[in-house]
Amino acid sequence: MSKPLIEQLAEAFCCLPGVGPKTAQRMVLYLLERDREGGQHLSERLAEAMEKVGHCERCRNFSEQAVCDICSSPRRDEKLLCVVETPGDVLAIEQTANYGGLYFVLMGNLSPLDGIGPSELGIDKLLSRCEGVDEVILALASTVEGEATMHYITEALKERGVTVSRIAQGVPLGGELEYIDGGTLSHALSGRKVL
Amino acid sequence: MSKPLIEQLAEAFCCLPGVGPKTAQRMVLYLLERDREGGQHLSERLAEAMEKVGHCERCRNFSEQAVCDICSSPRRDEKLLCVVETPGDVLAIEQTANYGGLYFVLMGNLSPLDGIGPSELGIDKLLSRCEGVDEVILALASTVEGEATMHYITEALKERGVTVSRIAQGVPLGGELEYIDGGTLSHALSGRKVL
Repeated sequence: MSKPLIEQLAEAFCCLPGVGPKTAQRMVLYLLERDREGGQHLSERLAEAMEKVGHCERCRNFSEQAVCDICSSPRRDEKLLCVVETPGDVLAIEQTANYGGLYFVLMGNLSPLDGIGPSELGIDKLLSRCEGVDEVILALASTVEGEATMHYITEALKERGVTVSRIAQGVPLGGELEYIDGGTLSHALSGRKVL
Repeated sequence: MSKPLIEQLAEAFCCLPGVGPKTAQRMVLYLLERDREGGQHLSERLAEAMEKVGHCERCRNFSEQAVCDICSSPRRDEKLLCVVETPGDVLAIEQTANYGGLYFVLMGNLSPLDGIGPSELGIDKLLSRCEGVDEVILALASTVEGEATMHYITEALKERGVTVSRIAQGVPLGGELEYIDGGTLSHALSGRKVL
């Protein structure tokens, strides 16, 4: 005899990040008791997205078309390219509404131990993509892997005469100095600006 | 132009309890990046459960069959009936593995202001269900609505000569007296047992 549907559904919910057995059970009971329509809708959207969302062939971001909305927009500055690690980073930068260039999504960072080398990150594609671009902005995390990836890309792009910059490191807005770690503070000090 | 699938899916995830826009976005990106198979599986289970899970005609608990597994089990004590508010309560009691009787799920509490009266809770069904039952255990929360519901059921069952009991109120296991509220403590004192 197979398991009851309710248990099967609760186990399926556990594949979501941050959802354990208790939360999954709560979600199942909530949907069954109060929002079957919402559950049905979620199921349809989920099936559609899992099947149809692929990667944009220009920037590697998630897209249901061959070329994503950002890459195909005529209002974007094609001379400016921002390199990020994940599609989530693109969403975060887009929400600032303060950047008008294009993106390139690595979908990871260099990590030889995990078998992630330049080809997995599409660095070749990035290099060919950079022709005709004035400036490449590196917006990667300042972790060991992020720094290594930035170093690799910088070296590769310098040979081609493209300006490469990285986003500023320093004190976050509203951050109280007292609670900020030493590494961030030294970066903020050495990166100070004359007023 | 319709919204991108990713946004549609994130909005659909927001129907889940405890999931806001940020968590929904994290779920969508996680599934797309790392677990498309899990997402597909979740979508199928979800569609199936939303369509097929109804209520057991004997105990009103969620069930995909007309009579649920507990009600149709020959190993259950049919002389004992536990009345609970929600299917989640049944799961909680089942996990104690310490109860061998049957259940009746009210799917709510009496709440005249919200239009929930005895007929919405299936009290008629409960009363007819109690024929041949030796004891009815009321396992409802001791909130105002829960107390009112217990009172109503007790009065109705007393007329029929069924023993009615309610689960014990007192100090929870491992609870330190210092941090327990006054109401619970007075219940624990007045419900003391001679050793």
